[in-house]
Amino acid sequence: MKTIVEPKQMQDLARKWRSEKKTVGFVPTMGALHKGHLELVRASRKENDATVVSIYVNPLQFGPREDYQQYPRTLEADLELLEKEKVRALFAPTNREMYPAGFSSRVEVSGSLVQGLCAPYRPGHFNGVATVVVKLLGAVQPTRLYLGQKDAQQAAVLKQVVRDLDLDVEPVICPIVREHDGLAMSSRNKRLTLAGRKVAPVLYKALKVGKSIVDLGQADAEKVLGEIKNVMAEERSVKLQYLEAVDAGTLAPVKEIKPGTMIAVAAYLDNVRLIDNIVI
Amino acid sequence: MKTIVEPKQMQDLARKWRSEKKTVGFVPTMGALHKGHLELVRASRKENDATVVSIYVNPLQFGPREDYQQYPRTLEADLELLEKEKVRALFAPTNREMYPAGFSSRVEVSGSLVQGLCAPYRPGHFNGVATVVVKLLGAVQPTRLYLGQKDAQQAAVLKQVVRDLDLDVEPVICPIVREHDGLAMSSRNKRLTLAGRKVAPVLYKALKVGKSIVDLGQADAEKVLGEIKNVMAEERSVKLQYLEAVDAGTLAPVKEIKPGTMIAVAAYLDNVRLIDNIVI
Repeated sequence: MKTIVEPKQMQDLARKWRSEKKTVGFVPTMGALHKGHLELVRASRKENDATVVSIYVNPLQFGPREDYQQYPRTLEADLELLEKEKVRALFAPTNREMYPAGFSSRVEVSGSLVQGLCAPYRPGHFNGVATVVVKLLGAVQPTRLYLGQKDAQQAAVLKQVVRDLDLDVEPVICPIVREHDGLAMSSRNKRLTLAGRKVAPVLYKALKVGKSIVDLGQADAEKVLGEIKNVMAEERSVKLQYLEAVDAGTLAPVKEIKPGTMIAVAAYLDNVRLIDNIVI
Repeated sequence: MKTIVEPKQMQDLARKWRSEKKTVGFVPTMGALHKGHLELVRASRKENDATVVSIYVNPLQFGPREDYQQYPRTLEADLELLEKEKVRALFAPTNREMYPAGFSSRVEVSGSLVQGLCAPYRPGHFNGVATVVVKLLGAVQPTRLYLGQKDAQQAAVLKQVVRDLDLDVEPVICPIVREHDGLAMSSRNKRLTLAGRKVAPVLYKALKVGKSIVDLGQADAEKVLGEIKNVMAEERSVKLQYLEAVDAGTLAPVKEIKPGTMIAVAAYLDNVRLIDNIVI
């Protein structure tokens, strides 16, 4: 596996692959890799001639009170995992390459995709994500872009940006990967205390209770969300930030739950912010 | 020459060229082509295996009181000129392809490049330009991007956007092309009345007077700009919008004129807005 720091060098490799008619799969990450990331890598390897993974903790997508400093960084373990997965290139730029002095362009996203869910609680977050991913796509020039359904709003926003800016890449959204007890895999899980880690699966447990109520015929979003909240309330250390029922495509809130509705949650546990979702 | 309307089709052609290791030069225009555009095309043809020209009057870069409706449109004559210049493909999308329902991503530029010159008089203009050019680059995927020095601020902004977003394209800035009487070529010249057309060369005449004063040893920007204004004031129909001396790279205002200083002007003539500049 080649490790590349400079965007220009990444572009050279991308151009070489393109001239060889190779398809390229790209998995952007912030490192602290887990099985969720590795499933993205495996999906990419299955569908493309070469796979590039990026590791970059993007300061632009963190708010001033968020966990940019505390975000887990495990580069050596990450490198070992990516070698094992036969990734062809790791693109790991530093802040100096990504945001040099004089940097002054951003991608800004408006509209319904950035009105609900995480957006009001993380102002600037999705613009930061959109900007860095447009930059990464400019460096890697992949055929396909692999994103996880765990960050459902991020995936929806990036699909929209790709469409809006006529970027020549096909987004592929992969399912959530979970621990044995149902907790959605996330780099932030590493930041949980032992006690927090024990309680964390309640998010998915509650979402599943909601889904089972829907399966039994209850379509009223308010009632279903109420039942989900009741389950989460059993764990006093869980501080709910939002629980919403939205259209999985447009992310617009819905009153009636039906196939294609996503129920999404964000909650704090030990000052660690976790998100999860389930699609009906 | 192939005429392409759909971005996806343009991308197919771009991908084909890339796999054939062809270099591609790209000249984005709003049509109403003149010799200035054709010099960009010729520069591109000299340096690349294939040249793509786009014609698209981009509504996003016009303010509500600007001349989007009145902007000259001469598609048939344009096609003929481009055929003669042996352009390989014309990319001519419509608003439906460029800004379909749900469009919600923009490129926004901040900082010194968009503080002076045209920026305060055309709010949103450079974001509109940046957004459409990023889209066009996504469709055409060229090796080189040809821009005219007449729109100096636009060229500087686009160079910055290319750098900031790690777009894999080399911007090439070509000199201003002028009529015999010195008027900078511009599609908007077509909108001048006969009387206005007679007076319009005063902009360049005044800039040249400024340069000759500098050549004679005057470096004080205020004094040089004052002399330029005096020349323009001889023509009462010329309504000056701005006259500034700036660093040609950063576009920051300068007090002392030296090599690398750009003197730039914008003025209304018959309600037609003209711009011009000269670099010392």
